[in-house]
Amino acid sequence: MEKDNDSKDRERIIIENILTRTSDRLFDASKGVEDDKVGTILRAAMSAPTGVNRQPWHFYVVTDKSILLELSEALPYCKMAKDAGVAIVVCGDRRKFLEGVDDTLWVQDLSAASENILLAAHALGLGSVWTALYPHPDRMEKVKGMLGMEEEFVPFNVIPLGYVRTPHKPIDKWNPEAVTYIK
Amino acid sequence: MEKDNDSKDRERIIIENILTRTSDRLFDASKGVEDDKVGTILRAAMSAPTGVNRQPWHFYVVTDKSILLELSEALPYCKMAKDAGVAIVVCGDRRKFLEGVDDTLWVQDLSAASENILLAAHALGLGSVWTALYPHPDRMEKVKGMLGMEEEFVPFNVIPLGYVRTPHKPIDKWNPEAVTYIK
Repeated sequence: MEKDNDSKDRERIIIENILTRTSDRLFDASKGVEDDKVGTILRAAMSAPTGVNRQPWHFYVVTDKSILLELSEALPYCKMAKDAGVAIVVCGDRRKFLEGVDDTLWVQDLSAASENILLAAHALGLGSVWTALYPHPDRMEKVKGMLGMEEEFVPFNVIPLGYVRTPHKPIDKWNPEAVTYIK
Repeated sequence: MEKDNDSKDRERIIIENILTRTSDRLFDASKGVEDDKVGTILRAAMSAPTGVNRQPWHFYVVTDKSILLELSEALPYCKMAKDAGVAIVVCGDRRKFLEGVDDTLWVQDLSAASENILLAAHALGLGSVWTALYPHPDRMEKVKGMLGMEEEFVPFNVIPLGYVRTPHKPIDKWNPEAVTYIK
């Protein structure tokens, strides 16, 4: 019985973490993000499933304040990066793509890894927000130059992370009309 | 102090769920999946972030045994569907795409939702595996016909779910070479 309760608690805790994640844009600029939390988040990212187990990714971890400021100024939806403790730039690694940059399988893999980043951050008490680079060539080129990326890497998104000033309320997006049952 | 321990337990439980998820293909054909678990999993799916909050998705929930068998016979990487309790077919809804089927933003959104499905299933003691349909026109057409889908829906993947016969060991995919620090 006690074990049953523990198991129910475990389920509730995990599901709640998924349901209450929000896109956070108001970071407390005075607080950095601990290295061990960044490490845990990267492990979570790399635990995502990938097509034919190619793991076609590379992660830039940016804590340099001047680069965070540059990201916030250069990108249209990334203003909050200047107040973030860290930004993870999720990239594809062309050498591990199955069929070139247009196959979209690497896009699926990197998106699953990105969702893991958001969920792990939320679990650790951090806010985060997924700001897209791909498929916008202008944004991708800027970030590639800014970080001095190797040619093989394809910038995919920027995820600023930090402690939030004002946590915001999760939105219930449940929509029964988006489901069809085939029984 | 007790609160600190609770909070550490919470973190550990959520992170562990992300790190120990595996792709499961050996389902116990004698066990169905409870409706309330399917409901929780769909809520998790719809909690994923989407570009400009378009929520461009539709979910087919297949429990009909003959359709599960058809899926397993028609698709190259979906043999296990015949033993699954349920398969969720994740689809795009063209009416909610920003810039047409080739923009890939809907692919990013649906991939984040799919990762939530896998993680929620794992939390609830279920195995699951992401089998890609998009971008393979032959697989997409077959599933579209099989389920009698509306024209607006774009089949994206099939995720069979069920109780597993033999749980398999999580793989540690941590790769420090896939990280660059910019301090």
